[in-house]
Amino acid sequence: MGRRLKLGMIGGGQGAFIGAVHRLCARMDDKYEFVAGCLSSTPEKAAKSAEEIGLDPSRSYPDFKTMAEEESKRDDGIDVVSIVTPNHMHAAPAIEFLNKNVHVICDKPMTSTMEDAHKLVDAVSKSDAHFFLTHNYSGYPVVRGMRSLIENGVLGKIRIIKGSYLQGWLGSKEEDSGSNKQAEWRTDPSRSGAAGGVGDIGSHTMHLLEFITQLKLQSVSADLTTFVEGRKLDDDASIMIRLNNGAKGFIIYLSSCYRRRK
Amino acid sequence: MGRRLKLGMIGGGQGAFIGAVHRLCARMDDKYEFVAGCLSSTPEKAAKSAEEIGLDPSRSYPDFKTMAEEESKRDDGIDVVSIVTPNHMHAAPAIEFLNKNVHVICDKPMTSTMEDAHKLVDAVSKSDAHFFLTHNYSGYPVVRGMRSLIENGVLGKIRIIKGSYLQGWLGSKEEDSGSNKQAEWRTDPSRSGAAGGVGDIGSHTMHLLEFITQLKLQSVSADLTTFVEGRKLDDDASIMIRLNNGAKGFIIYLSSCYRRRK
Amino acid sequence: MGRRLKLGMIGGGQGAFIGAVHRLCARMDDKYEFVAGCLSSTPEKAAKSAEEIGLDPSRSYPDFKTMAEEESKRDDGIDVVSIVTPNHMHAAPAIEFLNKNVHVICDKPMTSTMEDAHKLVDAVSKSDAHFFLTHNYSGYPVVRGMRSLIENGVLGKIRIIKGSYLQGWLGSKEEDSGSNKQAEWRTDPSRSGAAGGVGDIGSHTMHLLEFITQLKLQSVSADLTTFVEGRKLDDDASIMIRLNNGAKGFIIYLSSCYRRRK
Amino acid sequence: MGRRLKLGMIGGGQGAFIGAVHRLCARMDDKYEFVAGCLSSTPEKAAKSAEEIGLDPSRSYPDFKTMAEEESKRDDGIDVVSIVTPNHMHAAPAIEFLNKNVHVICDKPMTSTMEDAHKLVDAVSKSDAHFFLTHNYSGYPVVRGMRSLIENGVLGKIRIIKGSYLQGWLGSKEEDSGSNKQAEWRTDPSRSGAAGGVGDIGSHTMHLLEFITQLKLQSVSADLTTFVEGRKLDDDASIMIRLNNGAKGFIIYLSSCYRRRK
Repeated sequence: MGRRLKLGMIGGGQGAFIGAVHRLCARMDDKYEFVAGCLSSTPEKAAKSAEEIGLDPSRSYPDFKTMAEEESKRDDGIDVVSIVTPNHMHAAPAIEFLNKNVHVICDKPMTSTMEDAHKLVDAVSKSDAHFFLTHNYSGYPVVRGMRSLIENGVLGKIRIIKGSYLQGWLGSKEEDSGSNKQAEWRTDPSRSGAAGGVGDIGSHTMHLLEFITQLKLQSVSADLTTFVEGRKLDDDASIMIRLNNGAKGFIIYLSSCYRRRK
Repeated sequence: MGRRLKLGMIGGGQGAFIGAVHRLCARMDDKYEFVAGCLSSTPEKAAKSAEEIGLDPSRSYPDFKTMAEEESKRDDGIDVVSIVTPNHMHAAPAIEFLNKNVHVICDKPMTSTMEDAHKLVDAVSKSDAHFFLTHNYSGYPVVRGMRSLIENGVLGKIRIIKGSYLQGWLGSKEEDSGSNKQAEWRTDPSRSGAAGGVGDIGSHTMHLLEFITQLKLQSVSADLTTFVEGRKLDDDASIMIRLNNGAKGFIIYLSSCYRRRK
Repeated sequence: MGRRLKLGMIGGGQGAFIGAVHRLCARMDDKYEFVAGCLSSTPEKAAKSAEEIGLDPSRSYPDFKTMAEEESKRDDGIDVVSIVTPNHMHAAPAIEFLNKNVHVICDKPMTSTMEDAHKLVDAVSKSDAHFFLTHNYSGYPVVRGMRSLIENGVLGKIRIIKGSYLQGWLGSKEEDSGSNKQAEWRTDPSRSGAAGGVGDIGSHTMHLLEFITQLKLQSVSADLTTFVEGRKLDDDASIMIRLNNGAKGFIIYLSSCYRRRK
Repeated sequence: MGRRLKLGMIGGGQGAFIGAVHRLCARMDDKYEFVAGCLSSTPEKAAKSAEEIGLDPSRSYPDFKTMAEEESKRDDGIDVVSIVTPNHMHAAPAIEFLNKNVHVICDKPMTSTMEDAHKLVDAVSKSDAHFFLTHNYSGYPVVRGMRSLIENGVLGKIRIIKGSYLQGWLGSKEEDSGSNKQAEWRTDPSRSGAAGGVGDIGSHTMHLLEFITQLKLQSVSADLTTFVEGRKLDDDASIMIRLNNGAKGFIIYLSSCYRRRK
């Protein structure tokens, strides 16, 4: 490889969940060097977050436009940027960096609206840089092994497929606790989009199901529920599915399967 | 208890599956003495089956009417009869023995038609004897434990319920093998009724779900499939459910989840 | 087989542990008919125990000599007797029935003294009947499977063997509770012999080890312990072993690995 | 913490096993910055190893004495050195860096001879720096949890303790393969010391046992074996132990429990 890729990050500051995981994994692989970031949409918080994790202050930016501008001018500017913001903030920075021909690693779901999705697809088609969506479970050996069993015909023709993703962290009204940033934006249609759990963990399940079987979802019949009173987005789903080879099955996810004990 | 209950059996002869299991369990419990039977609807086969398992030939009967007649006359006649025939042959013998005030233990599903069900309910209401349906899983300690967890409020209000019963024995066209009597009648609408796997193992799942939660199924949305070509009844189902307390979930069963290797 | 074997039992009355298990298993197999017994060395208790489990009073005997005498005279006398008494009471009844050419199924360990062992071997050699020792674990499919793996060379030459049998029921001084007959005799050298846990569960482990590997124990170095104060026999052992092919390993058993919570 | 600790490493070059693991974990924790090393005792190999993993060539040293000398002179010199060499090469570099007041993290076992151990203890006592032995398993939450259960009396007085560490990588004569550096030195008394597996994985087991129980080993009876022909050190052990509170148990380890399939 010659050298480590220079990595930037949008989001992932204080109170965030997944940004630190991305940085940890980048260190584990030892193929990246984390050198720049706009770790929060609040400039002050971005600066504090950078200081906290030891990022060079001169490469901590108050907003992603400045970061794209400055980093693309430097000889030692970032090769790739990782976008770990709430869903509604995926498209804008992704387009900005793609326009500067900086590669983009973007969290799923791709965007929170179809309109954003179309704009992003357009930007990707015009850019020299690559765009990657973090359907991260496809990297697990067990997932590759499952896909391989099917690809090699060991399981024969697939008749029935089940996927489930069970969580319980949204079993109570965490978004009102005042201390759970992720719960706040994930249950807020303006930041998360129209899908709650379906967008968050249902999207993983659907991707895995298609990735492993190499079949395509053809139709769904879904029973979405909001179990936690006053919440605006779904926190549970049972989804019956049919696939393009005649296989059937279902996907379920639960963000609310238990209530946190006090 | 004083003495062991005298047990008779309808069905459970050569080539049958569940009769021998009932007799084994009756021996394990040591509360029953198996003394009479009409082990097959074919008189010759009934006699041979009786001989094979060491049943007194004078109490092996060629048909269930004769057996009900004769046994109810004896001082040492059976106390209770176990009916382990295909579904369409539950109602008639059950009614016959109930009319003689002999207790009846009957395999699920109760009957294969609504008409039979109504007749049977009528016979039960007129008889001095009891009628028991073998929803046998409710006897397992783990099932009682689960019910107790819910009853005692340990799990709180139930939001989501999942039940699954996975089998694979009907993954190929076993009913054409010529050597699988159970496969033959279970896939034959005239003997099994309108429901295939739903009647066979779906009925267990639905009963368990209601037994454990003490809730009632309110509505279902089912996607029944027949995966094995040429089969007349369903061999797979995905069923989304709603319960009377607002809980949701699904039931699945699969009689065909794998194909037997040759 | 023609007919069920007629089974008698010595021991296994009220308060006993393993006799009921033997009777249950005989019923499960359906190859035996339990017809006679001397269920306790106390005649009154023998009679009560027989009544409790529904044994024909005329074939419940006050002592094993009478039983051997009477049963061997009957045309429908027992074919085989199961001896489920404390260790010191194995040899005498076994010899008595062998002398009458009645087959004997005897609990392990065979005897509690070497002297008794020699007498019993002598009786076996003179009798027309068979003598079986209940090293029952050898009947499990998993044990047969392990033996087969070694026999077929799948595991190569055996280098290292470990056996362990962990129990905790003697972790406190159960023998003083007044309600645990088994604890009383198992910790009493006059009834159990010189070996406590070694005779009880160590004997199973040693047999399994030789049965599975088809090797022979050649030497042992044992650290026996009595953890429960005032107990007269061992309740724990660590035993390093060497086998006749150069393999090494160890056996451990623990009758006292935990203390019962009050 | 203010800043990451500057980390050096002795050993861990091409063909080595554990050095890369230490570096990976240091990156995961993000408390260290790896900046200098003498990655092999062969200067050429040290340089190549450094290049391969992207270490600044000016801080890759041909020998540990030079490294200790140079690094201790620099303002930005290493704070701590990790020693991941074969056992006989622990004491010398540890003493060298302790004499320069650089903290030392040293792999177990501490030394390969008692003489070296005494010298090292002496160096530690004279140094301002700390010396750490990597009994790494003590860092696992499950180990802390076990220790806590005992410390809080949840398990009562400890009677019996078992430890085992099973490996199979030395089940064949790996040291003759020409491609397994670790197998070579671990089976070579001049580099590994008098103990083979006992020094390698037995030392982990003994440490864990004392760490978890907070008891002390009082006496051992060990049956060491060399199963692989021609090997000079033990590759299996059964060790009966007694502890200072009267507890008993055993430790086993196996470096040779299976033979690698060709």
